[in-house]
Amino acid sequence: MPHMHVAGSIHADAMAASPKWLTRPADVNALDAALWPTGTVRSEAGELTVAGHSASALAAKWGSPLYLIDEAAFRANASAFRKAFAGWDVYYAGKAFLCRGVARWVAEEGLGLDVCSGGELAVARGAGFPPERTGFHGNNKSTDELRAAISLGIGRVIVDSLDEIERIEALAEELATTVKVLVRVTTGVEAHTHEYIATAHEDQKFGFSILGGHALMALVRCSTSPWLTLAGVHSHIGSQIFDGSGFEVAIHRTMRVMAQFRDATGETLRELNLGGGFGIAYTAADQPLPLTDLAASFREAIDHESRGFGFGQLRVALEPGRAIVGPASFALYTVGTVKVVELDGGAARVYVSVDGGMSDNIRPALYAAEYSAVLANRASDSPPVLCRVVGKHCEGGDILVRDVFLPADIQPGDLIAVPGAGAYARSMASNYNHLTRPPVVALAGERSYPLLRRETLEDLLALDVG
Amino acid sequence: MPHMHVAGSIHADAMAASPKWLTRPADVNALDAALWPTGTVRSEAGELTVAGHSASALAAKWGSPLYLIDEAAFRANASAFRKAFAGWDVYYAGKAFLCRGVARWVAEEGLGLDVCSGGELAVARGAGFPPERTGFHGNNKSTDELRAAISLGIGRVIVDSLDEIERIEALAEELATTVKVLVRVTTGVEAHTHEYIATAHEDQKFGFSILGGHALMALVRCSTSPWLTLAGVHSHIGSQIFDGSGFEVAIHRTMRVMAQFRDATGETLRELNLGGGFGIAYTAADQPLPLTDLAASFREAIDHESRGFGFGQLRVALEPGRAIVGPASFALYTVGTVKVVELDGGAARVYVSVDGGMSDNIRPALYAAEYSAVLANRASDSPPVLCRVVGKHCEGGDILVRDVFLPADIQPGDLIAVPGAGAYARSMASNYNHLTRPPVVALAGERSYPLLRRETLEDLLALDVG
Repeated sequence: MPHMHVAGSIHADAMAASPKWLTRPADVNALDAALWPTGTVRSEAGELTVAGHSASALAAKWGSPLYLIDEAAFRANASAFRKAFAGWDVYYAGKAFLCRGVARWVAEEGLGLDVCSGGELAVARGAGFPPERTGFHGNNKSTDELRAAISLGIGRVIVDSLDEIERIEALAEELATTVKVLVRVTTGVEAHTHEYIATAHEDQKFGFSILGGHALMALVRCSTSPWLTLAGVHSHIGSQIFDGSGFEVAIHRTMRVMAQFRDATGETLRELNLGGGFGIAYTAADQPLPLTDLAASFREAIDHESRGFGFGQLRVALEPGRAIVGPASFALYTVGTVKVVELDGGAARVYVSVDGGMSDNIRPALYAAEYSAVLANRASDSPPVLCRVVGKHCEGGDILVRDVFLPADIQPGDLIAVPGAGAYARSMASNYNHLTRPPVVALAGERSYPLLRRETLEDLLALDVG
Repeated sequence: MPHMHVAGSIHADAMAASPKWLTRPADVNALDAALWPTGTVRSEAGELTVAGHSASALAAKWGSPLYLIDEAAFRANASAFRKAFAGWDVYYAGKAFLCRGVARWVAEEGLGLDVCSGGELAVARGAGFPPERTGFHGNNKSTDELRAAISLGIGRVIVDSLDEIERIEALAEELATTVKVLVRVTTGVEAHTHEYIATAHEDQKFGFSILGGHALMALVRCSTSPWLTLAGVHSHIGSQIFDGSGFEVAIHRTMRVMAQFRDATGETLRELNLGGGFGIAYTAADQPLPLTDLAASFREAIDHESRGFGFGQLRVALEPGRAIVGPASFALYTVGTVKVVELDGGAARVYVSVDGGMSDNIRPALYAAEYSAVLANRASDSPPVLCRVVGKHCEGGDILVRDVFLPADIQPGDLIAVPGAGAYARSMASNYNHLTRPPVVALAGERSYPLLRRETLEDLLALDVG
């Protein structure tokens, strides 16, 4: 079939300029070990093979598009956090990706679980996740959600507003119990990738500002309530962070408000939850700190501030989500069309359209998030060309991978794999254009099994009652 | 209850600066007629009342959050397009919002329907929508989707790539039929709000570029295929457009390629589809052209170019989606928390958290789309304060209305209504944080009835098979 094969129709030197962080690969078939679960290889036949499963076998068995999670890699990532931060509490942030199977893995690996809605709580409950190891987040938890959580015996509620404190008190009275709470504070630190911004005030919906005394007031409010057991303070500074220095500032500021509370009340708070936001590698340009280095710098900062403020041993907690599920996961798509689009100035861009898109991964459109991709069903001896992997939605911004080098002979029917797509992709997926959402399949040794099944048109149309 | 009432705790002069386009309302209870369906009023009791239904009655009957569509307003908008562009074909763009009920309204109002997936096609089919009045869009239609469309006798396939042309030919042969097609061309014109950009080439996934001869080549390719009936050309230049001048350039360029085709083949193409993108008012700052003015300028441009290129009467088509459903719709939320957040420089912002968020309307986060909101369940004699309406998701970017003046006494339990939220909100909705998606309810005289029912946790967990 006379497809517009890019090597034939456009010379490599007329290709669009690649972004600075992206270099033309010496070997377009190479797999960057930093982006894939341990043990991922190209088979002798040239196929991407994860946990022993070839891309084409997975697509044949489970269809396309498809999310995959290597169970061993997920467990290893969870376990690595537990070990690197031994003695601390590690909560898996369910918002990154949660289902019953994942909740069970988290429980078995000895981690806690963060939920932030009644729905996430229901999943945890369905998996038999220990409620006492569960934390409940959110700036606007409803009375029904709080009632469900408190009735279950939730470990900690991270309280976010005075309205919520009143709501919890009323429920605790109704249910004749007390509720253990952390107070979410805003430190003025906002971190992302290699930067952090530290201001006095934060213009955001979450928590109680330390400056202006709101956090201290909320702490005192909780500590004097007969219905609440105030355990400590919670701070969350951002997402996809590659640098520990923002955390250091946040640690100092949260400890300072804990000291102010001690000075005001004579009580010492024992828990400090530093939230999540630990960055992962989506592309070769992303270089997360090794977990052991991160743990060492955290411990040093905590110890330093703890000594400075005269605290003893604190109970510290973290909430990684993406950092556990992301590197264990990938998405698989089938190429539908390949199109060479001429650009102004004589350059060209190869648009590779796949059978999914912004409905199954909104992050590139929503955050301009960068991903990478590889040809998955075969190796190729064609030269690398700069491509843009796009979806099938009726929208120009429907981009999955903005810039990636793929072999010039890429063609309809090929499979493409996108590493890291297990975090915040299925969990934010939509049915835009009435596309049904792909399944999430676990790879476990020789087995593969569904965590979430593929949504069907019947599922979708079941809501259409008009 | 001692909520942090904003009038009490923060003086109006310490509020955050409002954006330039937003002015402090003289009457915070006033309803901007440009943003609401005809006949929307505040009742004597002060309630927002649409098509005779008060906000609190709707919330009591259907729950919260909730999308609402005034059926009469939808039909009036559809009918207004049909009348303003009498003699042209008007296709409702289903991607804005589609369900069986809406497809039936569209059919009854005499419009055609655009779909861009097998799922949207299935909805149309379920509604008994005439296939011959249906157009099928998409840059990567699958073979299965095309087979379903062709088998049904779809009116027009808007072809987007050479890969797709081959796919359609193979299916037409398999099904022993011919397929009527339009060729989607890119004109280099990209329009949005009050601007358009005209370049030679467009860096986007859709269609065939006119420059470089790709569009002409595709037209010739289709016209010489025994399996295709080439009807004409399709061009789509953008979204939320308030100014007709981008269309004029696109009309000129599409007609020019039609003339080139005539010169090359001796055949004259008779159909020109100009796509959609007609802007609506989400806030007082948005001022769409009256439809009759838009129609007049379109007709003038078409007639002018038609004379210039020596074409006779053309069959022209448009594809409004948002412009039909948006102004007929709104969303209703319940306030959960109200928080005054101090900003640097002594200012403050009131964060009003509601029981939905980026899962039911991703557009503010995705496109920085501006919306407005009103207190819906009552009138207030409190002064207006600048607020930010945010959702309940665990994410800082979870904003629904970035800047809006609401009464200073707004409090938990109040209802808030956001006009225009029926377009691209439910259709792009997710289950982020395991929130279930709100129902879409039609208002029809004294009746209200569900188009899409509320999603339940059971629906969600039915996919969780692990």
